[in-house]
Amino acid sequence: MTRQALFEQIKKKESFLCVGLDTDIKKIPQHLLSSEDPIFEFNKQIIDATYQNAVAYKPNTAFYEAQGAKGWESLQKTLEYIPDDIFTIADAKRADIGNTSSMYARAFFENMHFDSVTVAPYMGSDSVKPFLDFEGKWAIILAATSNPGGLDFQNLPVSEKNEKLYERVIRKSSEWGTSDNIMYVVGATRPEALKEIRKLVPDHFLLIPGVGAQGGDLNAVCQNGMNKHCGLLVNSSRGIIYTDSSENFTSSAGKAAQEIQLEMAHILQRL
Amino acid sequence: MTRQALFEQIKKKESFLCVGLDTDIKKIPQHLLSSEDPIFEFNKQIIDATYQNAVAYKPNTAFYEAQGAKGWESLQKTLEYIPDDIFTIADAKRADIGNTSSMYARAFFENMHFDSVTVAPYMGSDSVKPFLDFEGKWAIILAATSNPGGLDFQNLPVSEKNEKLYERVIRKSSEWGTSDNIMYVVGATRPEALKEIRKLVPDHFLLIPGVGAQGGDLNAVCQNGMNKHCGLLVNSSRGIIYTDSSENFTSSAGKAAQEIQLEMAHILQRL
Repeated sequence: MTRQALFEQIKKKESFLCVGLDTDIKKIPQHLLSSEDPIFEFNKQIIDATYQNAVAYKPNTAFYEAQGAKGWESLQKTLEYIPDDIFTIADAKRADIGNTSSMYARAFFENMHFDSVTVAPYMGSDSVKPFLDFEGKWAIILAATSNPGGLDFQNLPVSEKNEKLYERVIRKSSEWGTSDNIMYVVGATRPEALKEIRKLVPDHFLLIPGVGAQGGDLNAVCQNGMNKHCGLLVNSSRGIIYTDSSENFTSSAGKAAQEIQLEMAHILQRL
Repeated sequence: MTRQALFEQIKKKESFLCVGLDTDIKKIPQHLLSSEDPIFEFNKQIIDATYQNAVAYKPNTAFYEAQGAKGWESLQKTLEYIPDDIFTIADAKRADIGNTSSMYARAFFENMHFDSVTVAPYMGSDSVKPFLDFEGKWAIILAATSNPGGLDFQNLPVSEKNEKLYERVIRKSSEWGTSDNIMYVVGATRPEALKEIRKLVPDHFLLIPGVGAQGGDLNAVCQNGMNKHCGLLVNSSRGIIYTDSSENFTSSAGKAAQEIQLEMAHILQRL
């Protein structure tokens, strides 16, 4: 999906919500466990309940790998079920030496038709560039992550001008592609970073996890990170998919997504 | 597998060779493609041919993911086939926020019984620690990688004393565990880094890729990186598994492994 097509979806749905499909077999409603593929069944019903209010879905691969080969089948089926006008993110945090990153890119872009993959920057240019070789596909590079350990290395000063590591990662990696094939992950829990990052990459989309369960605030995120084409995908996982473990879980998930969408519609009016 | 048990295997086989199972369906001998699971069949025959001369196997997950759910089955079967006295490494370069890293750890340690997983450090402590919670299991943290892009960020100075990022990663992360559950990845192509790293972590095992196809030199690696308990696992992938694409590929792979083992036996006499 192109940047323009994504922005069109955002305007149409008045939403920049990404729903995180971190589907844990231990957390889904009991009554689904008797179905043939409980993880896919859960995802399918969550997608049906939230699709009107979301522009992106982001399955985190860890939850599928924990189920082995069967988990990969659930992931594949989920991808096939997601409608074409939705932006899809493989939250996989991959990267390896060049020929190996190419294999990951093929796995997610060619075999599973994801629009994007999250990518870890530690191994540098040749570990990221293979993800940029696919027309219409995206690498979403980890910059300033939402977890407490994100501060261990990402904020270290790496130059005499006190440039931080995450700033260097963005400055350097933005030369490897464009705002049409690179996004960055910036945690909602780090609004000060968001403001600095927006100066470095005014046009790039940013994927923002950490709103909800991790404590980030939507308004602060938008004040610091929005650009004139929105430029934000804000993710919520646990705050939407696990609000209710009863048979009515889809209704609760739908409501949670709609509440966020209404806030987002209000914020988008500022554009 | 414990550090002591690994060292016993190294002494017994006079080898610290790790064979990288980067099994690419496009590169394996043609005659295997008609078997039910060509990737597993290739691995099985490579293991049979090299097992006497190797102490570790390292499948890189990218090559299995590129085959989807079927690839995960091949990986699972490969793991089950590897004998118990071999150290197994999931070269997966994973890491995510804490609860998600735990899912990865379960996937590789509980479901597939790997001894270790390679882990990317960019997200910091809570992304690595979940891999250290499993008795007898290991996190192998990326420090100074063998690829050209490894220099993009890893060598940046992060303190006034010109400490490099990879040195900080090692110094900091070595506090999260011990030499009994952490190893580090150091590319054979960076002997100067190896020497500095040995000073920082005298007792830790180091996993060394980049000998062979990537141009690293075994003797230089050992001079700079060996400790009194060997402390090295040197990986070769393409240099062993793809030396021959004919029906005699196992014989060529076996010979390639044995040649390295003989060099290693010679070097180990210095201990």
